[in-house]
Amino acid sequence: MGEIEHLNTPKLLLDRDRMQSNLRRMARHIQSLGCTLRPHVKTHKSHEVLHDALSVGGISGITVSTLHEAEYFFADGQRDILYAVSITPAKVIQAAQLIRQGAWLKIITDSVAMAKLAGEQAEALGLTIPILIELDVDGHRSGIKPSSDELLEVARTIEDSDGLILQGVMTHAGASYDCESLEAIHACALQEQEQTVMAAQRLRDAGFACETVSIGSTPTALLTENLKGITEVRAGVYTFFDLYQAGLGVASVNDIALSVLATVIGHQEDKSWVIVDAGWMAMSRDRGTAKQSIDQGYGLVCDLAGQAYPDVIMGGANQEHGILMARVGEVPLDVTRFPLNSKVRILPNHACATAAQYSAYQVLEEGSVSAQWSRTNGF
Amino acid sequence: MGEIEHLNTPKLLLDRDRMQSNLRRMARHIQSLGCTLRPHVKTHKSHEVLHDALSVGGISGITVSTLHEAEYFFADGQRDILYAVSITPAKVIQAAQLIRQGAWLKIITDSVAMAKLAGEQAEALGLTIPILIELDVDGHRSGIKPSSDELLEVARTIEDSDGLILQGVMTHAGASYDCESLEAIHACALQEQEQTVMAAQRLRDAGFACETVSIGSTPTALLTENLKGITEVRAGVYTFFDLYQAGLGVASVNDIALSVLATVIGHQEDKSWVIVDAGWMAMSRDRGTAKQSIDQGYGLVCDLAGQAYPDVIMGGANQEHGILMARVGEVPLDVTRFPLNSKVRILPNHACATAAQYSAYQVLEEGSVSAQWSRTNGF
Repeated sequence: MGEIEHLNTPKLLLDRDRMQSNLRRMARHIQSLGCTLRPHVKTHKSHEVLHDALSVGGISGITVSTLHEAEYFFADGQRDILYAVSITPAKVIQAAQLIRQGAWLKIITDSVAMAKLAGEQAEALGLTIPILIELDVDGHRSGIKPSSDELLEVARTIEDSDGLILQGVMTHAGASYDCESLEAIHACALQEQEQTVMAAQRLRDAGFACETVSIGSTPTALLTENLKGITEVRAGVYTFFDLYQAGLGVASVNDIALSVLATVIGHQEDKSWVIVDAGWMAMSRDRGTAKQSIDQGYGLVCDLAGQAYPDVIMGGANQEHGILMARVGEVPLDVTRFPLNSKVRILPNHACATAAQYSAYQVLEEGSVSAQWSRTNGF
Repeated sequence: MGEIEHLNTPKLLLDRDRMQSNLRRMARHIQSLGCTLRPHVKTHKSHEVLHDALSVGGISGITVSTLHEAEYFFADGQRDILYAVSITPAKVIQAAQLIRQGAWLKIITDSVAMAKLAGEQAEALGLTIPILIELDVDGHRSGIKPSSDELLEVARTIEDSDGLILQGVMTHAGASYDCESLEAIHACALQEQEQTVMAAQRLRDAGFACETVSIGSTPTALLTENLKGITEVRAGVYTFFDLYQAGLGVASVNDIALSVLATVIGHQEDKSWVIVDAGWMAMSRDRGTAKQSIDQGYGLVCDLAGQAYPDVIMGGANQEHGILMARVGEVPLDVTRFPLNSKVRILPNHACATAAQYSAYQVLEEGSVSAQWSRTNGF
């Protein structure tokens, strides 16, 4: 389809070679540990990206963050879907439409009260829906403590409901995102595996079935060396990687497959600023790297070949204006390095957030645009 | 269409009464100063919202932040459109399609070099496009200093081009967003008016036409008491307002017309957290109030009638999970105040960013959903 120089801006670029390398890295690692992947499609929300992931192999099903994603991917033929956000009765009604069409949809809960409500709703619809109990292995967000009495109470509530059937346990080691070393992520991964397997064992010891033992986060999935007792690993952002993951040390800047193409529209020479036509609408408002040791502003600037300029970031952003500048501590930017009407690529802090600002990916192969791939957004 | 209790979540709610009151407030204020409004539609990107604004009166045309918005609103019959981001040759090509269909599209520039490139492109297409020179009145972002020689050089470049015709000057007093008092915003407004009128006068004194003298930002537009010499005021976020504008003091929390409807999906009682199914995807990653005296987290929590709980904010957010908690310094949240499966509304930090996460507004009148309104996104 042509050269990126000819694209209107801003545009979301996807380097397919880098992405395929990321997909292979994760798939091989998880397979080498005797486990399967259930990739989280919330990062890309794209049929075509998922097809590339599936072609690498080792994938047992998909994970979604909204039922809208489930509907989008089911329409493309994906049947085995885990909706990994606590269910509600209203979402049981929405899910029922997919299930009746043949989706093998699994849901999650982390309380007796919601399990009861969801079970009653499913029963009223004449369905029996497989459900996983969400565990809290690190105090990060949702879930039940693996050692708590509540774990068994929720299992009992599920077993008592004709609308639900206990499928297993799942967790997300989100605290790995706050780690400051690979050793700390490794420790998170170990804790995730141990706590989840322990919960599964407690359920089995109490006479409950626990077929699925599901864990996952990109950092822990990449660093784990032990998936004993785990049946599937969920992760999403590894597909593209981003500056946040690079800051954690689990990927390099050169692994990042996603970037935003922008045009230089102005210079403020006295302030050593270069203005581009990609602002926070094009990059998202995500400033995740602000809390890491290297603050990348709204993104790290690259040349058109995708090679990063180590000293230049998008230091400020309005809705449709980005301000490129030197990092704090560097020599002020010589704006003539970025002539008016020239183009740059900008690596995102957070791939999930940046991609969500677009309805399509411009796919790059060997530096040229080979295709436009779809993505879905919204709820 | 019914009660908000029955909506699936998350959903974007628009309180039409509040919005109409906001629209009237701005329109009356600007008209009372003898001027007209050119509302910035980048906030709402919605035909129906614009129709309500037009019905209030006092509007001379619209302002857009992307040519995609121009295309969307032109398709609905809007002809008089200012594209308020520096033009590039590629965007002249895109704009030409609208102009040939009858759009009265105006563009902007802030450099001799880009004026030359854009003029050559317009000439090659056989067009003469009205263009405004962008001024920098406060060092905030783009533009030419009103007192600079460059102002006249750009005007001369435009006059020398057969592809462009000088329409006037424009600026955006973006520094008003950093003000810490109404007095400071008032001073910004005065500076914006004075500097812009001075630039217009310099152009006229040098023999150039300068029909349009355009300024604007919601804070300065609301506080200005003097629009002498100004022909139009641009502002957008006043349509909905948000927590950032409330923090600036130019609106109250009860003026905010936009909120996100969410369902309580979990409790973490030991941490006094309430988990809802609206995370940063539903609220945006905007954390603008973090730099204000009252940090509202990812949003301020309200009951279903839209009345804010002063002590409860969304203090944390993952992609599809929001964590409601007491503000720092308040008594930890009693999670039983927000039962499982109940609903809340959450006011946004930044209306433009939050609305961009949705493709539709659920319109509330007298507390019930009366309509679903469209919005466009993307580039």
